[in-house]
Amino acid sequence: MALGKNYDGQDCSLAKALELIGERWTLLVIRDALYGVRRFGDFLAHLEIPRAVLSQRLGMLVEAGLFTRRRYQESPPRDEYVLTEIGQELWPTVYTLAKWGERHLSREPMRLFHHVGCGAELDQGAVCPPCGVRPALSQIEVRPGPGLDREKRDQVTLALRQPHRLLEPLLP
Amino acid sequence: MALGKNYDGQDCSLAKALELIGERWTLLVIRDALYGVRRFGDFLAHLEIPRAVLSQRLGMLVEAGLFTRRRYQESPPRDEYVLTEIGQELWPTVYTLAKWGERHLSREPMRLFHHVGCGAELDQGAVCPPCGVRPALSQIEVRPGPGLDREKRDQVTLALRQPHRLLEPLLP
Repeated sequence: MALGKNYDGQDCSLAKALELIGERWTLLVIRDALYGVRRFGDFLAHLEIPRAVLSQRLGMLVEAGLFTRRRYQESPPRDEYVLTEIGQELWPTVYTLAKWGERHLSREPMRLFHHVGCGAELDQGAVCPPCGVRPALSQIEVRPGPGLDREKRDQVTLALRQPHRLLEPLLP
Repeated sequence: MALGKNYDGQDCSLAKALELIGERWTLLVIRDALYGVRRFGDFLAHLEIPRAVLSQRLGMLVEAGLFTRRRYQESPPRDEYVLTEIGQELWPTVYTLAKWGERHLSREPMRLFHHVGCGAELDQGAVCPPCGVRPALSQIEVRPGPGLDREKRDQVTLALRQPHRLLEPLLP
């Protein structure tokens, strides 16, 4: 059934948010960026997404202010895509939805999220239980969990087999 | 661009969650159910969604265990749709995404969420600041905010002009 992108008549903030990030793949692109993926080819290899779709999504997210484009090589010209503060603020949504999926749809967690300060695992609401705080992204480490996919061999997947701080560039 | 419903090769819990609730309208149906909407006609009038889409979404959500169907009238037969525990657990995702949309895409909040116990407004992470707890859904009241849409006249919109506890049936 063909459906437009907009939710006419739904003037609420959830509908507006869904118009922006509710398109297929968009939230997975944002998740990868939270892990520290920045380059087109790395998103492409990790997500196994059609190239045109990735290109459209990144362009749309730059335009909406969730990513900035940054030139990292002049010849040939190459840009990387860095999450802005606005994009980073989707972390609680990405995290709580992934945890929900883990509880109800997966068997074991692929990734665990720990507070760097004390090493404790975050709870379902992204709070560090012993410290009682919601750590900043730079203070959260993603670690491989028991449900890790051992089949995939792209660079992002391989890099995420080691503990890694959110937002820090994942690949050189 | 035609894209399938599934994210092949993405064996993570976020992709699985998106396969289920990432389709257009689904999260808005769940939001309405959190407010206490239960009947087909009420979802239909409030969301202004095509009838066939709503029917497909509710059927899919029942099958996936996020809603149960409950007969409330025998002649003619009429069912209502009630969120299960699994469906209710999407509250943090719905809430944090709506708040994100409010901060970055809307002007003023349409709805405010308060802890029934102390009356305080929940923070961006659905925590009650003075109490330091994330209240259960039955302890959260949705109230009209300054950005309320005064144009819409359907029964759900009108009922939500009064404070109302989440999950409690909104209409008789």
